[in-house]
Amino acid sequence: MDNFVLHNPTKILFGKNTIPLIGKETVAFGNNALLVYGKNSIKDNGIYQRVVSSLTAAGAQIHEHPGVQSNPLLDHVHDGIAKCRKHNCDVICAVGGGSVIDEAKAISAGVLVDHDVWKFLTGKKSIKQTLPLTTVLTIAASGSESNSGMVITHDFKKQKFGFANRHLFPKTSILDPETTFSVPSDYTAFGAIDTLSHILEFYLTTQVVDSSVQDSLMEGLVKNVVMNTDRCLVDPTDYDARANLMWSASLALNGLVSAGLGKVMFPMHLVEHSLSALYDVPHGAGLAITITGWMRYCARTAPFRISKLGKNAFGIEAGSVTESAHATTDYLLEWFRRIAAPTCLEDIGAGKESIPYIAANALPQAKVWRMREISEKVIEEILHCCLK
Amino acid sequence: MDNFVLHNPTKILFGKNTIPLIGKETVAFGNNALLVYGKNSIKDNGIYQRVVSSLTAAGAQIHEHPGVQSNPLLDHVHDGIAKCRKHNCDVICAVGGGSVIDEAKAISAGVLVDHDVWKFLTGKKSIKQTLPLTTVLTIAASGSESNSGMVITHDFKKQKFGFANRHLFPKTSILDPETTFSVPSDYTAFGAIDTLSHILEFYLTTQVVDSSVQDSLMEGLVKNVVMNTDRCLVDPTDYDARANLMWSASLALNGLVSAGLGKVMFPMHLVEHSLSALYDVPHGAGLAITITGWMRYCARTAPFRISKLGKNAFGIEAGSVTESAHATTDYLLEWFRRIAAPTCLEDIGAGKESIPYIAANALPQAKVWRMREISEKVIEEILHCCLK
Repeated sequence: MDNFVLHNPTKILFGKNTIPLIGKETVAFGNNALLVYGKNSIKDNGIYQRVVSSLTAAGAQIHEHPGVQSNPLLDHVHDGIAKCRKHNCDVICAVGGGSVIDEAKAISAGVLVDHDVWKFLTGKKSIKQTLPLTTVLTIAASGSESNSGMVITHDFKKQKFGFANRHLFPKTSILDPETTFSVPSDYTAFGAIDTLSHILEFYLTTQVVDSSVQDSLMEGLVKNVVMNTDRCLVDPTDYDARANLMWSASLALNGLVSAGLGKVMFPMHLVEHSLSALYDVPHGAGLAITITGWMRYCARTAPFRISKLGKNAFGIEAGSVTESAHATTDYLLEWFRRIAAPTCLEDIGAGKESIPYIAANALPQAKVWRMREISEKVIEEILHCCLK
Repeated sequence: MDNFVLHNPTKILFGKNTIPLIGKETVAFGNNALLVYGKNSIKDNGIYQRVVSSLTAAGAQIHEHPGVQSNPLLDHVHDGIAKCRKHNCDVICAVGGGSVIDEAKAISAGVLVDHDVWKFLTGKKSIKQTLPLTTVLTIAASGSESNSGMVITHDFKKQKFGFANRHLFPKTSILDPETTFSVPSDYTAFGAIDTLSHILEFYLTTQVVDSSVQDSLMEGLVKNVVMNTDRCLVDPTDYDARANLMWSASLALNGLVSAGLGKVMFPMHLVEHSLSALYDVPHGAGLAITITGWMRYCARTAPFRISKLGKNAFGIEAGSVTESAHATTDYLLEWFRRIAAPTCLEDIGAGKESIPYIAANALPQAKVWRMREISEKVIEEILHCCLK
């Protein structure tokens, strides 16, 4: 096991009827709140009204910043920063999924500096302080509600960059699984694939020789993600399945399972960020393609970890280590198909001829993330494994 | 899954050569430190010198409070509070295992109130504030380094009571697995049994119908505790085995695996506290007896959970659910014997005739912990299951 620091100060309030707590949790940090959210879905399902009512009852003034889209755009972050300054907001409350929370994080950091917030994303500036952030999560996927990461897309440069800093942990996050009852099947599946990819990035790229404790935790989460997604797709109001999925998503990327794994890489996210920057495909959908590609790539070059995962998470034992690795890859590929996710570049309108274009887009992010092992050649090889 | 709040603010610094960080971590909270530790072992193995050197280099003044014993005594807590007041300490640094850290927690709470600290333990007073606490852990066992609990024994009343409050989380805990290389075999085993018992209390007493995520985490930890203890006993300097065991011990009782399990009970600790209060048996050794007794008791009344644990942690499948539950109980009993722990009351000089005496001692703690289900009759039945 490698050395690590683990310090996750986010307070999680998990369960039924926890939304009414958001007011008290938010005004503990400030009374003048920027309320960040996406489209109309939270108005349709009543979450917006419950949040506003709780904030108002607690004495908060609310300034709205709606319209965050999937793969949140830098320009919209700039708008949020301007609103935050205009109204002198002292706290931010994000209501939504990973995109909304990520944009709120970018605003919370950007509002306190003179330079463009994009400089944080490109590693040119370091975050020293942020406005306090509270969140109400509405989809199980990114883990942003309990971690220090954010991903923002540059409108013109067509770059989707991720970044983490300890000041970006939310103060409090409310996770009510019932908020996800109305998430449609496709986005339930995409969210689950996002969660799965977080675990697989760690599990399949760690170079640590003995990660026995972390492996057990990750294998358990992978098993739970697949099992509970299937349950949610059968019955979207299965509370325990939604709860298991939501909690698995937070645990996948809150620092716990990666603690002690040493330097890990994010090849699946690296390539996917280019897919969603260039083809406007939802993040989780793009990931189903890059997970498949990366696992095929690894099943040839480093099959042991994939076969261990297959055995301990799914009970797959298929002859040699390489055969088990391929069987595990196929098992997940079949699962992606069953839950109606794309599994190859052709499914999103790309193809062999697009590979150099996608790879060129991904390379700058690989450099910012300092993933030297993932050269343009490796990216192209992974993309070849993403073909039908 | 039940509703839960999870908020663990302790910063964990884990790994090799992390002890030199204790100075900087401690002076972040105060410069006038009470240094709490046990007997001479930390002087023999050099940990004391490294801690003092780091604290001194960081500019801390040090006031010593040595002599904490296993099952720390209230009287010694009183001495520590007096020293803390005399020297106007503004921070506490604990170097040791669960007993040392628990005593430091009691001092950190007791020094700021006029009444006796025992009133916290009996639930008559609530903790409102504490002095900041940093820790250097030297044995994998209690999890106290990353949780809000403490256990103190009343010298005259012969009562060993446990208590938790959110102000008792350490600020920073340093976990260097190499500090445990010199822990002798018996205490390595007792520590591992303590860890195992924490997980089993949760796993076997939860009434939640669907705890799928938590179950996977707990099954993984149980597997790791057994596997890595065996490795440590073969080679006490096996770094990864010591690291896996140390990290499992923290994860077992830092709030993670019990989050969402609803009301859980601590029958094994309840009865063990009386064994160590009355027979001066080490905590982990007493627990090997009460785990065995409680599992025998449950294998008859509620075998399903034990059989699930046996299957997923150890691959045990032995016919019916009841047969699997007994096979799992026997598996752990055999493991306790193999690692030289006592497994019945007779092993510590008690017997059938002692049962009413032990049960009478345990009852007040059951009341303080509000475990109504654990009546004197149930305690006696568990104790009967603890006989050879």
